[in-house]
Amino acid sequence: MKFGIVSPEGEISQTIRYGTEEWVKNGGFVKNLIKEVGVFLDTHPEIKGVGLGFPGLLSADRKEVVMLANIPSVNNVPIVQHLKSEYPKIVFKIENDAKCATLGEYYFGENRGMDNYMLITLGTGVGSGAMINKRLFIGAKGNGMEIGHMLMDDGKTLEDYIKLSNICKYAQKLIDEKKFTTTIKRDEEITPKVLHDAACAGDQLAIEVFNYVGHYLGMNVVSVMRVIDLDKILLGGGISGAFEFIVPSMRAYIEKSLPPYYTDELVIKKASLSNDAGLLGAAGLIMEDYHVLGDVLD
Amino acid sequence: MKFGIVSPEGEISQTIRYGTEEWVKNGGFVKNLIKEVGVFLDTHPEIKGVGLGFPGLLSADRKEVVMLANIPSVNNVPIVQHLKSEYPKIVFKIENDAKCATLGEYYFGENRGMDNYMLITLGTGVGSGAMINKRLFIGAKGNGMEIGHMLMDDGKTLEDYIKLSNICKYAQKLIDEKKFTTTIKRDEEITPKVLHDAACAGDQLAIEVFNYVGHYLGMNVVSVMRVIDLDKILLGGGISGAFEFIVPSMRAYIEKSLPPYYTDELVIKKASLSNDAGLLGAAGLIMEDYHVLGDVLD
Repeated sequence: MKFGIVSPEGEISQTIRYGTEEWVKNGGFVKNLIKEVGVFLDTHPEIKGVGLGFPGLLSADRKEVVMLANIPSVNNVPIVQHLKSEYPKIVFKIENDAKCATLGEYYFGENRGMDNYMLITLGTGVGSGAMINKRLFIGAKGNGMEIGHMLMDDGKTLEDYIKLSNICKYAQKLIDEKKFTTTIKRDEEITPKVLHDAACAGDQLAIEVFNYVGHYLGMNVVSVMRVIDLDKILLGGGISGAFEFIVPSMRAYIEKSLPPYYTDELVIKKASLSNDAGLLGAAGLIMEDYHVLGDVLD
Repeated sequence: MKFGIVSPEGEISQTIRYGTEEWVKNGGFVKNLIKEVGVFLDTHPEIKGVGLGFPGLLSADRKEVVMLANIPSVNNVPIVQHLKSEYPKIVFKIENDAKCATLGEYYFGENRGMDNYMLITLGTGVGSGAMINKRLFIGAKGNGMEIGHMLMDDGKTLEDYIKLSNICKYAQKLIDEKKFTTTIKRDEEITPKVLHDAACAGDQLAIEVFNYVGHYLGMNVVSVMRVIDLDKILLGGGISGAFEFIVPSMRAYIEKSLPPYYTDELVIKKASLSNDAGLLGAAGLIMEDYHVLGDVLD
């Protein structure tokens, strides 16, 4: 977990990290969270609001986390209410972490203020979020854009193909099959960096691995575009370091699968914030013009 | 094309049908459309607004049709502006026909006023629309929810499996393979009614055909649910007559593929309006509380 203070201009200061397990063991996650937020608020009276990003599913009213695989003790705890009762003058907001990263790009990225786009983060999982008409799209019950779990064929999800561990497995399979020439050794630990460096040096196997990532990403994005009709795509996360090797097959798949209406103004860009996207986006939750698509009705 | 007058209570009167080709040939589609709308307005001064549904893609601002495969002469014609300049006191709105059918259920169906749901129409094509937070969801550029064209596996769409003609092809294939017992004869014309009647009489082949439809529908809905996080599904269109034979495999596929968060309150119901959904929904465009999700910003 990473904490920090974000200025309205997106400058980050006072960052500090904690281990989740440590908190869970010593007094419980929620108690430690409230304590740590309190330390920040007491020592920095200039803080106007606190945004928190969680890697799980949230309630539609954004008052609590409903499914956080790694820290089940947080599930269904009215976390916003707990924080608010301790610090009534402070605004507290929670959001899913991939949606925070999407917001980070909106408020503090190179493409800030872009009306419509989706962010896809390629890492240990495949996360995603979308801004539609300048608002965060969360779907009807609040946890839309979980594209990593969309089905690519009978029972197999996008993550089954292109989350980090499965990309590495695919690379290992290619090495074992010896169909592609490569400088990567059989017992070498495969990382995105190893693959990217090899691809940059013209390694056929590494290039094929990124083609494979782009192929499944393209296949997925075609279906997402059919549902939310959006043609600006930002790629983030560790694996997107190999952006230039992933995009050609991704773009080719999208262009062959969709009519010109969808592809004429297709943009696939690298996300601009890298590791700080989530932290910045959590701060974005506090921005005055921040709204979830649909919540203006409430 | 079907025209009619719809009362605020959803009573339809004065319906009349025209052939599209006839209009295209005799003076052009748009000219005839404006003329016909004029006949209605001149003879029925009580009409407050006119809603029009088109089976194609529309501009995000809902001023014109951008891709209507059957009548390309309508594409990019400022149709709302043309109508408005002839009848300045009347409200004119246009929408995609599947989205109209979705609205029809919202204003005039058995489940009227339901906050969140999607309608899937199973017919010559697979159409769809969704209400999210009581608003029509159209996506970022205005033509979302085209689920019939989502990819089920590499290059193959939902329609490739379960649009009417492909269901009939699948049935024919099963008949030729002779794997399932059936009372349907080899040279018999296969229609949804023939299949449904056979299934009702316990025909194994017909039952397998609807299992197949439910299987692919379930597979598709899993991905749609991951994007828009919505768990109320209405099935309409001619093939949904066999609702009770389609739903078990559809529901089973969804339940095996998603965690309880998504399926605990899953509802799959038959749409209530059948053939009039589109006409009623076009009238729904004129209702005072009608809004597209996101357009409150404008």
